[in-house]
Amino acid sequence: MSSIWNKGIQLSIFGESHGPAIGVVMDHLPSGEYIDLEKLITFMSRRAPKKEAYSTQRREKDMPSIMSGFLDGKTTGTPLCAFITNDDPHSHDYLKVSKLARPGHADYTGALRYNGFNDPRGGGHFSGRLTAPLCFAGAVAGQILERRGIYTGAHIAEIHKIKDDSFDAVTTTRDDIIELRKKGFPVLNDAKGRRMKNDIERAAQAGDSVGGIIECISVNVPAGIGSPIFDGLENSIAQLVFAIPAVKGIEFGVGFNCAKMLGSENNDEFYVNDQGHVVTRSNNHGGILGGISSGMPITLRVAMKPTPSIGKPQQTVDMSTMKEETLKITGRHDPCVVPRAVPCVEAAVNIALLSHMLEYPNF
Amino acid sequence: MSSIWNKGIQLSIFGESHGPAIGVVMDHLPSGEYIDLEKLITFMSRRAPKKEAYSTQRREKDMPSIMSGFLDGKTTGTPLCAFITNDDPHSHDYLKVSKLARPGHADYTGALRYNGFNDPRGGGHFSGRLTAPLCFAGAVAGQILERRGIYTGAHIAEIHKIKDDSFDAVTTTRDDIIELRKKGFPVLNDAKGRRMKNDIERAAQAGDSVGGIIECISVNVPAGIGSPIFDGLENSIAQLVFAIPAVKGIEFGVGFNCAKMLGSENNDEFYVNDQGHVVTRSNNHGGILGGISSGMPITLRVAMKPTPSIGKPQQTVDMSTMKEETLKITGRHDPCVVPRAVPCVEAAVNIALLSHMLEYPNF
Amino acid sequence: MSSIWNKGIQLSIFGESHGPAIGVVMDHLPSGEYIDLEKLITFMSRRAPKKEAYSTQRREKDMPSIMSGFLDGKTTGTPLCAFITNDDPHSHDYLKVSKLARPGHADYTGALRYNGFNDPRGGGHFSGRLTAPLCFAGAVAGQILERRGIYTGAHIAEIHKIKDDSFDAVTTTRDDIIELRKKGFPVLNDAKGRRMKNDIERAAQAGDSVGGIIECISVNVPAGIGSPIFDGLENSIAQLVFAIPAVKGIEFGVGFNCAKMLGSENNDEFYVNDQGHVVTRSNNHGGILGGISSGMPITLRVAMKPTPSIGKPQQTVDMSTMKEETLKITGRHDPCVVPRAVPCVEAAVNIALLSHMLEYPNF
Amino acid sequence: MSSIWNKGIQLSIFGESHGPAIGVVMDHLPSGEYIDLEKLITFMSRRAPKKEAYSTQRREKDMPSIMSGFLDGKTTGTPLCAFITNDDPHSHDYLKVSKLARPGHADYTGALRYNGFNDPRGGGHFSGRLTAPLCFAGAVAGQILERRGIYTGAHIAEIHKIKDDSFDAVTTTRDDIIELRKKGFPVLNDAKGRRMKNDIERAAQAGDSVGGIIECISVNVPAGIGSPIFDGLENSIAQLVFAIPAVKGIEFGVGFNCAKMLGSENNDEFYVNDQGHVVTRSNNHGGILGGISSGMPITLRVAMKPTPSIGKPQQTVDMSTMKEETLKITGRHDPCVVPRAVPCVEAAVNIALLSHMLEYPNF
Repeated sequence: MSSIWNKGIQLSIFGESHGPAIGVVMDHLPSGEYIDLEKLITFMSRRAPKKEAYSTQRREKDMPSIMSGFLDGKTTGTPLCAFITNDDPHSHDYLKVSKLARPGHADYTGALRYNGFNDPRGGGHFSGRLTAPLCFAGAVAGQILERRGIYTGAHIAEIHKIKDDSFDAVTTTRDDIIELRKKGFPVLNDAKGRRMKNDIERAAQAGDSVGGIIECISVNVPAGIGSPIFDGLENSIAQLVFAIPAVKGIEFGVGFNCAKMLGSENNDEFYVNDQGHVVTRSNNHGGILGGISSGMPITLRVAMKPTPSIGKPQQTVDMSTMKEETLKITGRHDPCVVPRAVPCVEAAVNIALLSHMLEYPNF
Repeated sequence: MSSIWNKGIQLSIFGESHGPAIGVVMDHLPSGEYIDLEKLITFMSRRAPKKEAYSTQRREKDMPSIMSGFLDGKTTGTPLCAFITNDDPHSHDYLKVSKLARPGHADYTGALRYNGFNDPRGGGHFSGRLTAPLCFAGAVAGQILERRGIYTGAHIAEIHKIKDDSFDAVTTTRDDIIELRKKGFPVLNDAKGRRMKNDIERAAQAGDSVGGIIECISVNVPAGIGSPIFDGLENSIAQLVFAIPAVKGIEFGVGFNCAKMLGSENNDEFYVNDQGHVVTRSNNHGGILGGISSGMPITLRVAMKPTPSIGKPQQTVDMSTMKEETLKITGRHDPCVVPRAVPCVEAAVNIALLSHMLEYPNF
Repeated sequence: MSSIWNKGIQLSIFGESHGPAIGVVMDHLPSGEYIDLEKLITFMSRRAPKKEAYSTQRREKDMPSIMSGFLDGKTTGTPLCAFITNDDPHSHDYLKVSKLARPGHADYTGALRYNGFNDPRGGGHFSGRLTAPLCFAGAVAGQILERRGIYTGAHIAEIHKIKDDSFDAVTTTRDDIIELRKKGFPVLNDAKGRRMKNDIERAAQAGDSVGGIIECISVNVPAGIGSPIFDGLENSIAQLVFAIPAVKGIEFGVGFNCAKMLGSENNDEFYVNDQGHVVTRSNNHGGILGGISSGMPITLRVAMKPTPSIGKPQQTVDMSTMKEETLKITGRHDPCVVPRAVPCVEAAVNIALLSHMLEYPNF
Repeated sequence: MSSIWNKGIQLSIFGESHGPAIGVVMDHLPSGEYIDLEKLITFMSRRAPKKEAYSTQRREKDMPSIMSGFLDGKTTGTPLCAFITNDDPHSHDYLKVSKLARPGHADYTGALRYNGFNDPRGGGHFSGRLTAPLCFAGAVAGQILERRGIYTGAHIAEIHKIKDDSFDAVTTTRDDIIELRKKGFPVLNDAKGRRMKNDIERAAQAGDSVGGIIECISVNVPAGIGSPIFDGLENSIAQLVFAIPAVKGIEFGVGFNCAKMLGSENNDEFYVNDQGHVVTRSNNHGGILGGISSGMPITLRVAMKPTPSIGKPQQTVDMSTMKEETLKITGRHDPCVVPRAVPCVEAAVNIALLSHMLEYPNF
């Protein structure tokens, strides 16, 4: 595998930031699933760059064209391919720096991997722009899951030391998620959100950038989905989430904090709820035990590094001359990709959930 | 996939805790690789339960028998199968509790996933015992990598709030790793290690357990290994590490701390070192950029929850009657699996690295 | 992939002819499926070498030991591993010829593929003995399919120009298949079978061997199983059937004869039968259209070359000296593997069918 | 898998006959490979429908647009996506018959497989038009192989009982293949070709169609490529060749004729040739032993059924009413797809060979 992911749903993502088009093929979708294109575009627009301060000024329309696997508004069951053309690439700004390995980017490692033949413009296949087809796929998966009651939502949990509130891992409902999605800046506590935006703006003005943490929750996932060892929900979600550039960590449930807990604190006791279902009182396990869903909300947190493209001058190496040089990235850049990565994390989780669910006869 | 992992090296792990045997098939190994069985057993014995306080008293010999793919001390290139017989299972202790879903275990989710037909004894296929074949595979992969200079080592970074020192992500050498492996209790700072052991013993006496964090480093990994999007080193390592029961999080480089940093702090500047190689001054990126190795040490941290088997009474549900019951796990249990998980994390990283390296012509 | 096959059911076959054991791991089996071990052994014994003239005298007991994934007579849903120990290997006869590349065998190509490190004894991983784990897997798959009414049977269609009768591709029933399986020598027309046996005996006495054709049929396969392009039933069955050593061709329905037909002769017209099902009057398409089952019996024919091990002297090359030498294979050999390959073809078809059926929700 | 094939080279084919576009993503291509677009289009034009009698009159330009993975005329190593727009679909002719299951087509099985949601126009995803992206991929693979001396060529071996001459399985050279490719009608013996064309024209005038056999050869394939059991060259080539609609059989070397031979006739004796290479005097094994290339030419034959679309009236079932009806396909149809399938078979073989070769370090 490389840019193909396959298990249940199979994805093949292609394209370079400044090539003719980027896109995705989704294979093994169930047939006859209605896809609401307006809703899909709304989902994708949450990822698209904004005109506001905290985003790149490159205006990507990011409108997908569906080429196959779709008829009369429904999936046909055959491979669904969507294209997004690259119509406003500003190649020139990028080309000036193409011989200097931008710190924090894949310019150097990509050149080694592909013996210098990869497309360096705008990061090429490594560009964050490649999350657009991922979001497309996640939006399709999400609509199929939501039709079955399963909702996934995410918010900015932290940006540069400013923390948002957290999801309640036991009581969060689909309505909470629907409400959250309406927000232009996806936080639970809007006051914290305003502080984050100010912080991002401050970094932008200093020619710098900030990282953050995204928290994600999926509710109403049926118990019993997933498999042990290599094919658990955690394995699959992790494998997909690391497809988002800048992700450097993932944790489920209480995650790294479990290292500070006793077993008696961390274990979630089972009981039978009013509907006669086995559930747990707390949800430190994040809805996954032994790689398999427990029926409790699935919770996870994803760490994202600060955008590596910054205005401040940086020391680096010219890959053609092997000489050290000072790099000054000009043009406007996105000082914080965390808000735009929120739907990407939701997309990755949706794709993993749908893939695992398709393995079960009772889908 | 399920209990099969395949990319370059393919693994098929099988077995249940109390069945006749557990084991692993490794496919796509290079041929003609000498495997030192004594070294292999030394590696695996780091995972085996100890007689000391902080381990289970079940004495597993865990000695693997190689059934195929191995001739005259060398890999043949055809599938290498190893199995480990289960000769001391104490099934009776476990059977008493088999109808009660143990909190924090996969008893409940596994029963749902397999419609109640899975082997519940000792956790069955979900047992931590299944990490023995993983360690076998990792030990084989490790010897092949070490022949090419690549060394992977890990230590206990934290147990229940007590923190060990950290690897130096820039200067750590293979000798540091070899030194570390000799330790019975794998910490960098032995004084901290003694405090950890005391803490584990305290938890054991209270019928409780503790979790922790493992830090891992791989040195001398050539630059240019891995791929973007779904098939990066981070994706693969994460997918494998989550095969270890009790793992709840993984982070690379500075990981979740990157959320607190500015881009100008987090970016690692490139320079040309004395040997003429492009390297970075700092290593916040953990040796991976765009899913591809940079040539800097690969660093990662793995969070492990406290052992869910505890002596303290817990509330849970009897899966046969759907009634709430008090569970009291008798018999000795391992109050902290973190020390034994250290070689498992090394194993997972070794397998991922070898798998990716085999994709490259210059292996 | 290599010796792993995965799609729905995943197989990992391991072992060498003269190593400690051979075996198979089957992953993704449905849970709770009762496996009748006596029936399974009866199936496998059809593949086992016989004491009669037309078989090797090496007595393989070929009794599988199930190591995992099986409890109280039922599949658990976790990986099912079966081992067969090699207890009577006669290594010495084989070792004498190990430097001479036996014509028609993989001695030369295997040595190149594995740089000379593969186990050459008795063909090693290339041995026909490796069809025993394939038959095990096929027997398991077959029992699961038969529980749902789907029966697969095969017979010797031709041995060295002597032709058996053919299945009726429209009217063959499960009872015909059950009847056929009872025969020691699997032909439809016993008179033809006697002529075949005489022919085999004649070849044996001349130190020679004969090839043949196997015809296989699967009845009651539901319509709608399979997928277009790369994942059709024909693709999967072909991929599995070529895992049987000595197979050199496969054809479905009228197969190569379709090259002699007009479209108006070859097309099978549809009609609605008494049960209200859409069926075809003829079955030239062999039950598969566009890679998908039509509900008509699936029919295929497999060509097997004569056993390459013959007593007659042959010219070949000594791989260690690169000198030409005369090879004289001593000891008794099997002059015709076609009868023993009959259950192997059934096994391959059963595995493919079950794998594809598991992808469908209504399994 | 479904319409994705992956092993070394990974393919994802998408599209429907009358949708906006069809195409393919190729992943894991080596980087820096020059692709001659003119040569590529020449290859693809051999598959394109002709204006002559023996082809459909639908004029498909079939010109691929490369969207990614390609820069300055060379592969970048990242996924290469090509798409072909459907600009002249004549949907109306097809739509009239869309409720009647065309005999020999996948209309009925496809409708079942996708619960009636698949695109029925022109066969949808099952259309022979989907071989255009396969040919694109094969043409790319072929150029990479030819740069290393490996040439694959095919010809029509038989059409409706008229047989062409055969390749010499031992002496055929790359020059023979280059010569063959120049022919408008790919046969070795042009007199036979003229008879075939007359036969096709006769069938066309009778509103009927004819099938045939394609013979394919690959020369200069290095010895030692491939793997035993499930991953041999025969398994892979077969899996890919059955992706071409209308293929009903495949055989390697002497194929089904081996059933008529003695072992002493069929075995190919080894000797050392003038260049010091181990080769065989005859080539009944078709260049593959134990799934691995022997260094001799790889030879195979593929059976293709007559085009199921014929002008003659046929009895069938209306899938909406479940009533039997007479189907009369109007409009011009291709009475013999065998000539156009010749490059498709070459493409499948090229893709399989390149995929296996990429697994080896000495590529």
